[in-house]
Amino acid sequence: MTRPDEEAITQAVIARFGQTPDPRLKTIVTELTRSLHGFVQAVEPTFDEWLAAIRFLTEVGQMSTGSRQEFILLSDTLGVSMLVDAINHRQAEGVTESTVLGPFFVETAPSLPDGVDIASGEAGEPLYVEVTIADLDGRPVADAEIDVWQSDAEGFYDVQREGLETHSLRARLTSGPDGRARFWSILPTPYPIPDDGPVGRMLQATRRHPWRPAHLHFKISTPDREPLITHLFVRDSAYLDSDAVFGVKDTLICDFPSHPAGVAPDGRMLDRPWRSLEHAFRLPLRK
Amino acid sequence: MTRPDEEAITQAVIARFGQTPDPRLKTIVTELTRSLHGFVQAVEPTFDEWLAAIRFLTEVGQMSTGSRQEFILLSDTLGVSMLVDAINHRQAEGVTESTVLGPFFVETAPSLPDGVDIASGEAGEPLYVEVTIADLDGRPVADAEIDVWQSDAEGFYDVQREGLETHSLRARLTSGPDGRARFWSILPTPYPIPDDGPVGRMLQATRRHPWRPAHLHFKISTPDREPLITHLFVRDSAYLDSDAVFGVKDTLICDFPSHPAGVAPDGRMLDRPWRSLEHAFRLPLRK
Repeated sequence: MTRPDEEAITQAVIARFGQTPDPRLKTIVTELTRSLHGFVQAVEPTFDEWLAAIRFLTEVGQMSTGSRQEFILLSDTLGVSMLVDAINHRQAEGVTESTVLGPFFVETAPSLPDGVDIASGEAGEPLYVEVTIADLDGRPVADAEIDVWQSDAEGFYDVQREGLETHSLRARLTSGPDGRARFWSILPTPYPIPDDGPVGRMLQATRRHPWRPAHLHFKISTPDREPLITHLFVRDSAYLDSDAVFGVKDTLICDFPSHPAGVAPDGRMLDRPWRSLEHAFRLPLRK
Repeated sequence: MTRPDEEAITQAVIARFGQTPDPRLKTIVTELTRSLHGFVQAVEPTFDEWLAAIRFLTEVGQMSTGSRQEFILLSDTLGVSMLVDAINHRQAEGVTESTVLGPFFVETAPSLPDGVDIASGEAGEPLYVEVTIADLDGRPVADAEIDVWQSDAEGFYDVQREGLETHSLRARLTSGPDGRARFWSILPTPYPIPDDGPVGRMLQATRRHPWRPAHLHFKISTPDREPLITHLFVRDSAYLDSDAVFGVKDTLICDFPSHPAGVAPDGRMLDRPWRSLEHAFRLPLRK
């Protein structure tokens, strides 16, 4: 039980925020105070534990750079990012579920034609993807902007590569009148989140691994709806039940069937086995 | 009420921490998850609010340097530092109350003789201090190490001054056989905590001022007790009821009576009015 003199500290902080003019900010700082003080009461940190927390958070901030955001990684690995995502996507039944955007989305991905191979010679198992964009009634949605991005066979995104000159395994496609879009790529593989910083140390200390199961990212935008941001996961991937960032949802796990060498649906001749993915996205309601 | 699919995220994170070998760490990360997710449920942040929080915390980390610790400042201004202090000092009745150490303590302050003037010519109203160190039964404690430090008339500590060559307004004294120590200084004045960073912006946005009431810092160490870390506040100071870091306790507010020019108790002749402070510290129980 909280002692009266300690409860008085909490109440004093809340009272001090009483003049906050923005009502939303006032709610946030009030709840933050209540929650943070409740946490401190629950664990009763020693001075040294408090100082260790100060140092950890400082290091998380200082590890963050233009191309590395360690606080987002911390939010991801504590399940906060997925929780914020869930709260902001309490969608109608039937809408494709969303998941985290992740740190590797690029606003200016190249617009490429239907049927393109986005792998540009990258090593890996060929993958043929056909997606359908539809509304909740199943009506095809034409002209949807479909961003797709994924890691290479070594688990890196193009933007993580030093000296990158062109994008790879990343494209912006547009759905046709039938709501469809098709592209060639390679089968994604599992990869670890960056674990050479304080978040990595947290994972190690708690015996957690840093791996994410194999997935493709999608962001599907139309003029009159919130964008749908999600992944499609490979059903036979490792780590589906222990994604380091808690991003997996059952409805997003897809079959990626294998096919023998031969002619693909678009007429391409494959000299080795290939995989395919077909998926129908159901967009959120109009704004 | 938390929705089942959102509660499932929280439970998944707690379960993922289930293999943490250190039981104390396991308690901390479990409670952190529960508390943090509870906060997110309470405020239901938008994606933009979540991103603003990420950016704020990142900036707090990046503002911290060897001589500036913005995360401690954040902890202080949210009352967390005082709460941690209170939890770790649930003392026997009669022990002098503690308060925050603050960022300006120096481990290697100069050891100076009884009666010394620690102001070394600093501008300000002269102040004569006599403290008694005693145990809970009122018996004097000899040979206690008494660190004292305070800000100058402009509100800065010596360590905040560029190009500082010697310490000023800072000393380590030793109590005599009667438990007493005396020194000259200047009357401390209120000062603002550093408010040119993200914590300062938080204070501005919530219409809080950054000021601390006038005080002297003390750290009193003996071989067989936890050190007593506290302040003595000037009773006629501004901001006693709104200390930016919530450090004030009623029992630590002291009279600093004014005296006309003339002879001080130690025989020093003052050509202008001066103030005095007498205080008896009661140390914690032996370990």
